[in-house]
Amino acid sequence: MNPAQLPIGVFDSGLGGLTVLRAIHERLPFESTIYFGDSGRTPYGTKSKDTIIRYSLQIARFLLEKKVKMIVIACNTASSHAFEAVRNFAPVPVIEVITPGADAGAAATINQKIGIIGTKGTVSSGVYVDAVRAASADDPQIIQQACPLFVGLAEEGWWDHPVSQAVADEYLQPLKKAGIDTLILGCTHYPLLVPVIARTMGESVRLVNAGSNVASRVEAVLHSQDLLNHGVTTANHSYYTSDDARQFQELGSVFMDQPILAAGLIDIERY
Amino acid sequence: MNPAQLPIGVFDSGLGGLTVLRAIHERLPFESTIYFGDSGRTPYGTKSKDTIIRYSLQIARFLLEKKVKMIVIACNTASSHAFEAVRNFAPVPVIEVITPGADAGAAATINQKIGIIGTKGTVSSGVYVDAVRAASADDPQIIQQACPLFVGLAEEGWWDHPVSQAVADEYLQPLKKAGIDTLILGCTHYPLLVPVIARTMGESVRLVNAGSNVASRVEAVLHSQDLLNHGVTTANHSYYTSDDARQFQELGSVFMDQPILAAGLIDIERY
Repeated sequence: MNPAQLPIGVFDSGLGGLTVLRAIHERLPFESTIYFGDSGRTPYGTKSKDTIIRYSLQIARFLLEKKVKMIVIACNTASSHAFEAVRNFAPVPVIEVITPGADAGAAATINQKIGIIGTKGTVSSGVYVDAVRAASADDPQIIQQACPLFVGLAEEGWWDHPVSQAVADEYLQPLKKAGIDTLILGCTHYPLLVPVIARTMGESVRLVNAGSNVASRVEAVLHSQDLLNHGVTTANHSYYTSDDARQFQELGSVFMDQPILAAGLIDIERY
Repeated sequence: MNPAQLPIGVFDSGLGGLTVLRAIHERLPFESTIYFGDSGRTPYGTKSKDTIIRYSLQIARFLLEKKVKMIVIACNTASSHAFEAVRNFAPVPVIEVITPGADAGAAATINQKIGIIGTKGTVSSGVYVDAVRAASADDPQIIQQACPLFVGLAEEGWWDHPVSQAVADEYLQPLKKAGIDTLILGCTHYPLLVPVIARTMGESVRLVNAGSNVASRVEAVLHSQDLLNHGVTTANHSYYTSDDARQFQELGSVFMDQPILAAGLIDIERY
């Protein structure tokens, strides 16, 4: 089989990575994908680095068994802790989710005031701050804010709900006051809340969504390795989870904004 | 050592069980306690019954090694899935968290309309509905409502916050309309939100908090087995977690409304 026709593997600790997958589908409609959501062991944010590496390598083994041509780590914690380990292990290109958003944020700011929002774990790890600094020619002012309730609101489907608006007003106030012109959405759940985040921050603030920047990087890397699928076959999308498959389908369909018709249950500890 | 002077072991999948521990401290100030919060493997609600039994037996072994005189399962999921297994395994009395609240709810209602709120997992399992029916002489009307955002709001410390009020207004509306006179708080996080829940439901609705009913049962069982500590020793309280101990101390102090000065990190998979 032509390696360009193989699927792209995408994984996350649960559902959030589906916003990245959706961006890949939109940008690369001819690419087949295999998604693994580790809902049975979610959340990753509170677990140790060693544990996250072990989990990520298990998932990489599963995806490689499915013959993927690339692995996208669509999870902030796994990107931060396990990117090196997965890249050293896997014989295919590996893409993580932090650098593309950080690069885009560093490139987008004009007044050199950049905001970053994420989970408590992501914010306290400082991983986005480091990545933005590494990508910046200037020395930007960076303001971080943890928004722990955003994940629950996104999973509840309250994407443009008065409650979400009130929560956004409270969380984002310090970022507005600081006068940022660029806001990096440092959590894969947050793109779902763009309606309220954009309204709160106002039109002058550019929102940087990791998903679309990851999709561009996927395209660039596939192109450079002559692995892009140019549409000779029909794209196939399959979904796997380490937890209740029906619950994954239900919530996942909301994240994808189209029905996930089937999801397979995988005993990931076997890998 | 006099067995009555041994501590009571209390465990939960994370922090929620601290509301039960707090009720035990208030009711039984002479009792020493050992709390284990399995934050490294939280949440339990989405995991399989076999996994929950394995986790609960590991924790029971840890607590028994610490020489507890009783085990309190202060977690709804573990109570529902693993109570039998822990009771059959442990040579000390074992108390679960569902029946005391269900019994109190069945006893409290006058109009035989009872509401139950909990996580999605607890609500879909129907475990409180079964327990309330088993405890009722009449055939009460039971209305359930999942309140998934309440856990995040409780952990954020927004116990009497306008956002929590707005969320409560939305979640509790169907229960108000149904005219319940009794509301069982079927999640150990929810007692922290009593200010907004009580305001939303109004004075005529009785709120049943599992914690205080569990504490009564603990007292009754210890009394019946002559294991009550009558205050000859000073009560000692220790805390253990399977995750970052400092984070446990910080958030746990909020739950306990008093500082947790130390928490030990336990590699619970060893048990």
